[in-house]
Amino acid sequence: MPDRSSLAIVLAAGEGTRMRSALPKVMHAVAGLPMIGHVLKTATGAGIERFAVVVGKGADAVRAFAIKTAPSASVVEQVERLGTAHAVLAARAALDQPADDVLVLYGDTPLVTAETLARMRTELAKGASVVVLGFRPEDPTGYGRLIERDGQLVAIREEREANEGERAIGFCNAGLMGFRGDAVLGLLDAIDNSNAKGEYYLTDAVEIANQRGLAVVAIEAEAAEVGGVNTRVELAAVERIWQDRARQQALLSGVTMVAPETVFLSHDTVLARDVTIEPNVFFGPGVRVDEGALIHAFSHLTGAHLEAGAEIGPYARLRPGAQLGPKSKVGNFVEIKNAEIGAGAKISHLTYIGDAQVGAEANVGAGTVTGNYDGYDKALTIIGEGAFIGSNSVLVAPVTIGDGGYVASGSVITTDVAPDALAIARGRQVEKPGWAARFREMKSKTKRVRV
Amino acid sequence: MPDRSSLAIVLAAGEGTRMRSALPKVMHAVAGLPMIGHVLKTATGAGIERFAVVVGKGADAVRAFAIKTAPSASVVEQVERLGTAHAVLAARAALDQPADDVLVLYGDTPLVTAETLARMRTELAKGASVVVLGFRPEDPTGYGRLIERDGQLVAIREEREANEGERAIGFCNAGLMGFRGDAVLGLLDAIDNSNAKGEYYLTDAVEIANQRGLAVVAIEAEAAEVGGVNTRVELAAVERIWQDRARQQALLSGVTMVAPETVFLSHDTVLARDVTIEPNVFFGPGVRVDEGALIHAFSHLTGAHLEAGAEIGPYARLRPGAQLGPKSKVGNFVEIKNAEIGAGAKISHLTYIGDAQVGAEANVGAGTVTGNYDGYDKALTIIGEGAFIGSNSVLVAPVTIGDGGYVASGSVITTDVAPDALAIARGRQVEKPGWAARFREMKSKTKRVRV
Amino acid sequence: MPDRSSLAIVLAAGEGTRMRSALPKVMHAVAGLPMIGHVLKTATGAGIERFAVVVGKGADAVRAFAIKTAPSASVVEQVERLGTAHAVLAARAALDQPADDVLVLYGDTPLVTAETLARMRTELAKGASVVVLGFRPEDPTGYGRLIERDGQLVAIREEREANEGERAIGFCNAGLMGFRGDAVLGLLDAIDNSNAKGEYYLTDAVEIANQRGLAVVAIEAEAAEVGGVNTRVELAAVERIWQDRARQQALLSGVTMVAPETVFLSHDTVLARDVTIEPNVFFGPGVRVDEGALIHAFSHLTGAHLEAGAEIGPYARLRPGAQLGPKSKVGNFVEIKNAEIGAGAKISHLTYIGDAQVGAEANVGAGTVTGNYDGYDKALTIIGEGAFIGSNSVLVAPVTIGDGGYVASGSVITTDVAPDALAIARGRQVEKPGWAARFREMKSKTKRVRV
Repeated sequence: MPDRSSLAIVLAAGEGTRMRSALPKVMHAVAGLPMIGHVLKTATGAGIERFAVVVGKGADAVRAFAIKTAPSASVVEQVERLGTAHAVLAARAALDQPADDVLVLYGDTPLVTAETLARMRTELAKGASVVVLGFRPEDPTGYGRLIERDGQLVAIREEREANEGERAIGFCNAGLMGFRGDAVLGLLDAIDNSNAKGEYYLTDAVEIANQRGLAVVAIEAEAAEVGGVNTRVELAAVERIWQDRARQQALLSGVTMVAPETVFLSHDTVLARDVTIEPNVFFGPGVRVDEGALIHAFSHLTGAHLEAGAEIGPYARLRPGAQLGPKSKVGNFVEIKNAEIGAGAKISHLTYIGDAQVGAEANVGAGTVTGNYDGYDKALTIIGEGAFIGSNSVLVAPVTIGDGGYVASGSVITTDVAPDALAIARGRQVEKPGWAARFREMKSKTKRVRV
Repeated sequence: MPDRSSLAIVLAAGEGTRMRSALPKVMHAVAGLPMIGHVLKTATGAGIERFAVVVGKGADAVRAFAIKTAPSASVVEQVERLGTAHAVLAARAALDQPADDVLVLYGDTPLVTAETLARMRTELAKGASVVVLGFRPEDPTGYGRLIERDGQLVAIREEREANEGERAIGFCNAGLMGFRGDAVLGLLDAIDNSNAKGEYYLTDAVEIANQRGLAVVAIEAEAAEVGGVNTRVELAAVERIWQDRARQQALLSGVTMVAPETVFLSHDTVLARDVTIEPNVFFGPGVRVDEGALIHAFSHLTGAHLEAGAEIGPYARLRPGAQLGPKSKVGNFVEIKNAEIGAGAKISHLTYIGDAQVGAEANVGAGTVTGNYDGYDKALTIIGEGAFIGSNSVLVAPVTIGDGGYVASGSVITTDVAPDALAIARGRQVEKPGWAARFREMKSKTKRVRV
Repeated sequence: MPDRSSLAIVLAAGEGTRMRSALPKVMHAVAGLPMIGHVLKTATGAGIERFAVVVGKGADAVRAFAIKTAPSASVVEQVERLGTAHAVLAARAALDQPADDVLVLYGDTPLVTAETLARMRTELAKGASVVVLGFRPEDPTGYGRLIERDGQLVAIREEREANEGERAIGFCNAGLMGFRGDAVLGLLDAIDNSNAKGEYYLTDAVEIANQRGLAVVAIEAEAAEVGGVNTRVELAAVERIWQDRARQQALLSGVTMVAPETVFLSHDTVLARDVTIEPNVFFGPGVRVDEGALIHAFSHLTGAHLEAGAEIGPYARLRPGAQLGPKSKVGNFVEIKNAEIGAGAKISHLTYIGDAQVGAEANVGAGTVTGNYDGYDKALTIIGEGAFIGSNSVLVAPVTIGDGGYVASGSVITTDVAPDALAIARGRQVEKPGWAARFREMKSKTKRVRV
């Protein structure tokens, strides 16, 4: 819709009491991104240009997140809670500026797709003044039914007001609506609160538009797309739908997952062709994996990049800034943070590499630790190309091991090591013959647990 | 039912041949507790005061466990196996002492709820002499059908003796029964074994009670509640139902689980509001987690307590006696056993802390190990407030690092360190220039695998 | 069928475009074994003696794998791709040698059972010239329908050519076929390509055989058995069916799995009675576990053998050649590779044991590393019976710790230690009073992150 201007009002003021949480409802995450982030991201993907986000009283976290995600968004506070139409009108300042298409979205309905939003906009472009998103739930009980006549949506009938024939209708209101910009304020301002609860209902716009002879249509979305979240049970259900969708997409694009249902992707995970993932792998935000990489079971990645043919795990923990070069290898019980690992380098076991550069083809032995923190500052460790770090060594940063340097096992390295040199920093071995036999004899007489 | 005395006969003598196990069937665990433990715990929750547990020949493990769980329980042995009524009568000594309500429960049916047992007791209080627990299986084939007439349960009809109309009944016998104390022995003693197998069937009590003009009623339970266990396939199914129930409860009470189906709870796990749990976390017995704690993926907890805002994992392993103070942090590949970790203390990577106290705001570097065991005795390590332990150090217990003490990386600490002092115990670094180049040249001529 | 000779033609030439993979389709693995490996293994289990494998152009990996798996197999290349009958005839050389039973199998249909193949052969033995494997999919749309008349299969009707009555048939063609050796070449050579696509269809053999008055029968298999793989979504579905089958079998044979759906078995995993497996355990190829062993959560095993009563994990990583003696214990964050661990030995935490022998009842402390690799060669570490290795030690191989030897914590052991001796190789502890207080004062004035 490049020729039509657009505005989305995102309702995010719900208190979410049933979440039983100190965190505002729309800030609960799906695939590592707050729900409202999904809505803003999807709407942006559907070409929406402007956003007005309606938040509850004092929802600073929502406000801050919305502006970070969509910097041009205006965030308005709904002080009193008097119904959905009232909530939309909290954004009157935004509505006062003309836009061809106005969509009303929900911060707690994160699975709606850009394609569905685009279809809503298409109906507005074709002449509808109001478009309502519908769906067909397995059991329609409790939902408002969409009453259509010759392609016109004539009413949204609440369950309690529906007659028997209307209750038999399976097509229900999903909540999301679209308005032509030239009609929206006129319709919203005509909604009154003469009902049992004394609230202003957005759905009333349908009947008002009909009375005015405007075109109103309903379009259908998958039930899975329009599930809203009111409890953490529903949050978990939405997460699962999101994950299944993302896993399916990854498989079809050429990723092998032995057990897709045990792989947890993030909203921004990027996986290339012929990546193989064993069961039980968790992707936090910011991960990119290039072609042919192999991720063994029980790995946990956040903010990391694996280049082609890299192999990690099982039990690899990659933290933000982990950059693994082509065919590099990070093995079990290894943590990498803010470190570039060169092509073909191997860090196979029980190691912590933080704030470091590891050269190509270097070999880091089991139990190695970069001492990157002194309680106050973080400092850098540089391991040269082809260097060999013996087991259980500590490299106390800042420190550089030159290309081809060799650190003897068990050394604590505190000063730079020249290229091709051996550094050794450990005690000399001493033997006390028979000591262990005497120790055992003594102990076996006095054995107890002191703790 | 505070005004009615009660007794539960728990049948636990089944041999469980189809379990193919050396362990008695009722000792197989669900959520970390033997099945019979669930039954005893649930019955206690429903206000049952006395227990008689009927075990098989030589089932010492069952006997010991039952008495540990319900110290007042009498445990009786069913020497011959002549049917369910015969099994109940093995507890004749307990039945001889009057109780208003007598329930017959099964050690291999662990999912029945306290609420259901209370409903059974309510029927006895209202005047029924016999109450039978029924359920509606998806496919009733093979189950005894409950034949009711005007609210009276007139018979339990076995599949093979049922006529076509009776087979169409979907309401089936779950096995659990309740008896008024003044009727139970009279009914049981009237059961004979004039049937094909020559066994005494408890279900015969229904017809006998009807003949005597006593009130007999059936009440309904969920099918999921009354599933018995005869194979490990059924055991796994029961475990899954238990877990799903517990996960649902946790979510609704305000716990976030990204993927609830991958979180395994224990029978006694306690999770506060706004606890967040990433996928793949295993709770063994004895874990309590306070508000706002964050448990990353792949963590394994047993006998541990996380105070408010503590953060662990991924790959944190907490063993019995791990006490994590508020906002403390236990990172990846860290094991904590029998240790108090002070508020805000950080143990971020690749560390074993056992038999220790770690002061508030202390920082324990990667690769640190408390040497708490000398092959005979365990001893205590004390790390003071604000202390800093450099990477790959060993603290050989018993040893104390004073408040604000500093241990240099790679040190082996064998004697106490004064507050605010630095302790260093490692070799001096020596460099052999060009050694690595010569080593590589030599090796590249002779490379082979010696192992 | 010991009295009937047999040949299987395995079609493995499919390009697998929809897999989006550089790996040939039939080389994608299920339970750790390429799909074609399952087919060859199953057919061998059904008594098939000879194999001809039809591969695509340049499929060297398939060729090599097939010959490794079934050394007597002839591998032929289908240069042009002109339909299934044409593919089978690529193996004409094999068909020219007589065999009583000829089966046509598919390299991308790995779940078919030996029992089903045996039933196909039984039909040939009973006189059928052609036997077709059928199944009843939930939705038959798109499948060829099996048209039977009085037990004779008269045609396989493609969807687009079926009339309404035929479309109502739920019994469909699974693709696998069997032929009597004396009829097969005559039938195949009679198949022509006078159809829309100009291809030679193997299914045409059914009508030709009918025209010739030969007996043709269809037998039924479970739908789950005949699922073919064209995408990685289907590959994951096949993996899951395989896993569920194997888990069920393990449970029924006496293995306890708390959550079977989280345990991933390999095609050759062997588990004894009363083995207990916590959630989230991954078995790679080559693992055998003896009676009573206990595998805690998050363990990863490949090529390992656990003897009776051994206990591993959580987070145990056993690599090829790990041999764990009776009642030995491998704890958290421990990796064992190519090492024999003696009876009752304990390696409890954060350790790498590679290329080693560990004696019975030895105790290896936390953070121990065998330095088995110097950048060029691997060498052996021997730890004697009852030896005690203090925490954070390195044993630089080749090295031997004698029986009952004792290594002090934090030592780097480079020369052999005599039986019953103590070896110590570490720095002496030095204290600098007040240093930490001065350090903190200085740092708190200049704190910054240097990285």
